[in-house]
Amino acid sequence: MNKTSEQSEAILRRPIGIFDSGVGGLTVYRALHNRLPNEHFVYLGDTARVPYGTKSLATVERYAIENSQFLAALGIKLLVVACNTASALALPKIREKIGLDVVGVIGPGARKAVEAAGARPRIAVIATEATVQSDAYAASIRQACAIAEVVQTACPLFVPLAEENWTREPETFSIAGKYLREIKEFEPEALVLGCTHYPILRDVIQQTVGENVKLIDSGEACADEVARLLNEKGLANPHRVTGTRRLCDDLDHFYVTDAADRFGRVAERFLGAKPAKLEAVEVFGVDELKESK
Amino acid sequence: MNKTSEQSEAILRRPIGIFDSGVGGLTVYRALHNRLPNEHFVYLGDTARVPYGTKSLATVERYAIENSQFLAALGIKLLVVACNTASALALPKIREKIGLDVVGVIGPGARKAVEAAGARPRIAVIATEATVQSDAYAASIRQACAIAEVVQTACPLFVPLAEENWTREPETFSIAGKYLREIKEFEPEALVLGCTHYPILRDVIQQTVGENVKLIDSGEACADEVARLLNEKGLANPHRVTGTRRLCDDLDHFYVTDAADRFGRVAERFLGAKPAKLEAVEVFGVDELKESK
Repeated sequence: MNKTSEQSEAILRRPIGIFDSGVGGLTVYRALHNRLPNEHFVYLGDTARVPYGTKSLATVERYAIENSQFLAALGIKLLVVACNTASALALPKIREKIGLDVVGVIGPGARKAVEAAGARPRIAVIATEATVQSDAYAASIRQACAIAEVVQTACPLFVPLAEENWTREPETFSIAGKYLREIKEFEPEALVLGCTHYPILRDVIQQTVGENVKLIDSGEACADEVARLLNEKGLANPHRVTGTRRLCDDLDHFYVTDAADRFGRVAERFLGAKPAKLEAVEVFGVDELKESK
Repeated sequence: MNKTSEQSEAILRRPIGIFDSGVGGLTVYRALHNRLPNEHFVYLGDTARVPYGTKSLATVERYAIENSQFLAALGIKLLVVACNTASALALPKIREKIGLDVVGVIGPGARKAVEAAGARPRIAVIATEATVQSDAYAASIRQACAIAEVVQTACPLFVPLAEENWTREPETFSIAGKYLREIKEFEPEALVLGCTHYPILRDVIQQTVGENVKLIDSGEACADEVARLLNEKGLANPHRVTGTRRLCDDLDHFYVTDAADRFGRVAERFLGAKPAKLEAVEVFGVDELKESK
């Protein structure tokens, strides 16, 4: 083996970086982990500054770039922006600053919804206030299919309901009924779960809109796109992991910007396992320091 | 009038500073405004970093100090920490850093609850996870009355329900029924609303626990304490405001660290008026910059 192939060997073994505003991105991590069992992951949850969904464009961009720079410095081979709000608002800026392939959740989710729908697609999107206001899903859907009809609704209570693990409570069904009334009347073929927390409430949402509506998990769509990209660019890790991989095992490393205990507890609710490697770190202030010099 | 009295005259005309992690502190502002119509207020909502209720001690302390320094630099005569989480976790550090009188919401709320209860007080507290875990209300209540019995419960969904303005919805009653079940069985004499958002759901909470339980609004208790302190220290503004004062009129100045539009909208839901003076500012990074020099 010559030096160049040794170097590229090393690149293939590098982890895939994932960042999210907090714990929600764990559903995207789960999708990636299930889809790519030979890959290692580094996850950053920006729990000190969560949520992004109610913050402004400039702020979300700044946080997203700081998170991306933190992960890039760890030597990742590809960056996944698991947070829908950051994907909607900050992807161009991240790509500008980071010399790596960057995959968000909006584009993959939108394209998968168009594939799942018919020739004249009727697609509904549920997401945070900021994602809905950004119109990013609707723009991505129309880019994939110009004649698609799109209805979008923000569901602010879904995030705390998911974090409380109220996945079967009658209150959750009742709230879902209110939020999804307009979408039900729209009779979509596909409904995009445009916030990382929403797959936790998947059953409630499916029962509310009816079994004939195809639910699109943007995290799963993102995992498919990452798999395709790794193969296309020859970046997939050729070293098979021996034995069985489990979610949150010690091949994956988790970082949070605050309150690691709470992150561990919610990870257990969402994934059934606590991260084996979980660390609190400081990622912010980097840019301000640079600018002040 | 000699120079010294001119100077102290100027001090009396200075505004009272209020900070909160976001919009919730507007209920404390309302209480202060109603109690002290001759005073002017400067309010800082740290909307870029909200919520504090799920963050760690170190992070809440850091944010609280940055907010306090921002308001102190504006020339306030007294600082109100409207945020329960910051009051629970960061009051000693703030007092250490700021050469001003500082009033939080925990102490006043706890003392008012003890006054409202009987000789062997039975007091319930509802608050965020962080406030409950800090045990600050229980400690303050026991300081006022060593034999008081205290039960505390976190009600995470109350904040988003208040922000959605779901103040009469059956889902809110149902969720309140679940959260407050243990407290109802405890049969308290007084129930402290230990989070700034909870007064918005006051009617739901009162109906759920029963009319015989005295609800203690920590914001109102805090306003009483501020009024007492101003009189005691001769700091009250002697200049009567001519005409009628309204909430959010142009004598009060509001600052937010992000998303001023959303703050304005929620202010209208909470107070029935949008701030006449509302500005987005940057308060953070101050300490990091200093330390790097």
